[in-house]
Amino acid sequence: METILKSAKKTVTIGPEKPIVLIGERINPTGKKRLAAALAKGNLEIVRQEAETQVAAGADVLDINVSIPEVSEVVLLPKAVRLVLETSDVPICIDTTNPAALRAALDVYKKIVPEGKPIINSVNGDEASLKNVLPLAVEYGTAVIILAMDDKGIPPTAEKRLLVVRNIIDRAEALGIPRADLVVDCLALTVGVDSRAALVTLETIRRVREEFGVNLTFGGSNISFGLPERIVINQAFLALAVYSGVNCPIVDVAKVRPFILSIDLLMGRDNYAMRYVRAYRKRMADTSLS
Amino acid sequence: METILKSAKKTVTIGPEKPIVLIGERINPTGKKRLAAALAKGNLEIVRQEAETQVAAGADVLDINVSIPEVSEVVLLPKAVRLVLETSDVPICIDTTNPAALRAALDVYKKIVPEGKPIINSVNGDEASLKNVLPLAVEYGTAVIILAMDDKGIPPTAEKRLLVVRNIIDRAEALGIPRADLVVDCLALTVGVDSRAALVTLETIRRVREEFGVNLTFGGSNISFGLPERIVINQAFLALAVYSGVNCPIVDVAKVRPFILSIDLLMGRDNYAMRYVRAYRKRMADTSLS
Repeated sequence: METILKSAKKTVTIGPEKPIVLIGERINPTGKKRLAAALAKGNLEIVRQEAETQVAAGADVLDINVSIPEVSEVVLLPKAVRLVLETSDVPICIDTTNPAALRAALDVYKKIVPEGKPIINSVNGDEASLKNVLPLAVEYGTAVIILAMDDKGIPPTAEKRLLVVRNIIDRAEALGIPRADLVVDCLALTVGVDSRAALVTLETIRRVREEFGVNLTFGGSNISFGLPERIVINQAFLALAVYSGVNCPIVDVAKVRPFILSIDLLMGRDNYAMRYVRAYRKRMADTSLS
Repeated sequence: METILKSAKKTVTIGPEKPIVLIGERINPTGKKRLAAALAKGNLEIVRQEAETQVAAGADVLDINVSIPEVSEVVLLPKAVRLVLETSDVPICIDTTNPAALRAALDVYKKIVPEGKPIINSVNGDEASLKNVLPLAVEYGTAVIILAMDDKGIPPTAEKRLLVVRNIIDRAEALGIPRADLVVDCLALTVGVDSRAALVTLETIRRVREEFGVNLTFGGSNISFGLPERIVINQAFLALAVYSGVNCPIVDVAKVRPFILSIDLLMGRDNYAMRYVRAYRKRMADTSLS
C-alpha cells in the first residue's frame, strides 16, 4: 500500500518496498527555546531557516508545528505554512491539535498548491479529535497520521493500541478516506520507567503493518525521556522500529540521515550502495565548503 | 539455552534472556598495522594493553588472535594467552585456524586455569576443520563458535547456511559436545556487492535461533566492506542482528558499548535503565579523569 504526498513540484511515495521517507521534525517549538521565543514575537525567520536546512540535509517532507501559548495558532500556522511553501518544494505535514488552525492552514495551502496533498499530524481515538480532524482530511483530500491513543492516553499493551487504531481506521474509511491515506504512529512510553515500553511499541508496529497493511511513522523521542545520551537510544530504537515496519519516521534529519541510509542499505533497498555513497560524498563536499 | 564461560574468577553466562555479552575483538592483527608489526618482533606489549583497555571499557570476554605470517602461531598464541590471563580476569575466546597453535594455547590455558572454560573461535563445515577442532573442544571441555560456512565459502542463502550449521551441530553432538556449548556465527557477505546480504544473514540468525535454540555471535564487519563510514553501517546492522537473536557479538567494545547497552535497555533487559545510566556515569567520570 502506497501513500502519496504532493507539493507543487514533488511527489513523495511512502511504501513498504520504497526507501525510508524522512519527515523533518525541527519546525516545532517543543523543547526549542530560541524558536519558541521568536514565534512568540511573530518572527518566523527560524522557520524559514529550518525549512531550508532540513531540505538541504535530505528531508523528504517537512513537519510544521508552531504551537505556543503566546500567539494564536489560527494566525501563526497559516503564515508558517505559506512561508515553508515559499522556501522549499517538498510536501508538508501540518502538525496541530487546534481544528481552527488546521482549517486555516489547509485553506492557505490549497490556495497556494491546489493540486498538492499534505498530511495532517494527527488524529487520535478521542471522539473530539475524530470529529474535528477526519472531515477536514476528507474536505481537503489530505493524508492523515493516526496516533495509537485516545482520551485515556497511550494504552499500555499492543492489543489495546491495535483496538484504538482499528476504531480510527474504521471511522476514517466510513467517511471515504482511502486506507492508503492513513499513516499510523504506534507511539512509545518511556523505557526508563517501563522496561517493556520499546518491546510493546515494536510489537504494535509489526501487528499494525500485518493486520491493516498501512504505512507507519514514528515521531517523538519519548522513548528515551529522562535518560542521558538520548540520541544513542533514539537511533537504536529507530533501527528496530524501521526493521519492524516504520517507513516514514519524523526525525532530526541532519542527525539521523546517515544512519537511516545505512538501514535502507541493509534492508536491500539500495543497490550497490549508490544512494549511501552519494549522500556520503555530498556530506563531505558540504563539510569542506562550510 | 545458556552457554557458560569461565575464567579463574569470573563466570559469564550467554543466554536469550540475559544482557548481551560483549566479546572484545581488538587483539587481532587483521587490519592493525601497529599490532602486526609488534607481533612480528615477538613484542606482546600491545596485546597486554588491549586486554586492559578492553576490559576497562566493559568487555565480558576477550578474543585472542595473533595470526601473522612472520611468526609461528604455535609459539605466539600460547604466549598471548598466558599474557592475557595474567593481565585480565575475564574468560577468553581462542581465535585461530591453526590446530597445533590451538592445542598449544589450550594446554597453557588449562595449566593456568584448570577449572576455566574458554571458547574456541572457530570450527566450520570443512571436513578438516571438523576433524581438527571438535576433538580439541571435547578434550579440553571448551565451548566453540560454529561458522556457517564450509570449504566452498559462505553459502548465499539462509537455507544453505542452515544446512551447514545443522551438519556441524550434528557432528559436535555426536562427539558429546552439549548443544549449550555451541555458539553460531551466521556470517555476512558484503552489502555493497549484494544488496540482500544483510537480509540473508538476519534471516539465518532468526532461523538458527528458532531451529537449534543455540546462542549466537557475530564477528567481523565484512558487511560494510568497501564502503565509507563503516561504523554507521556496522552499528545499524548490530542493532538488527541483536534484535534477531545475536547475543554475544565480537566487537570493538569501547566504540559500541553505549549503543549495545541502549539495545539491552530497549529489549527490556535493564530495569529502570540502571545499567545504562551506571555505564554512562562511569564513562563521564573516566573522561573527566583522563
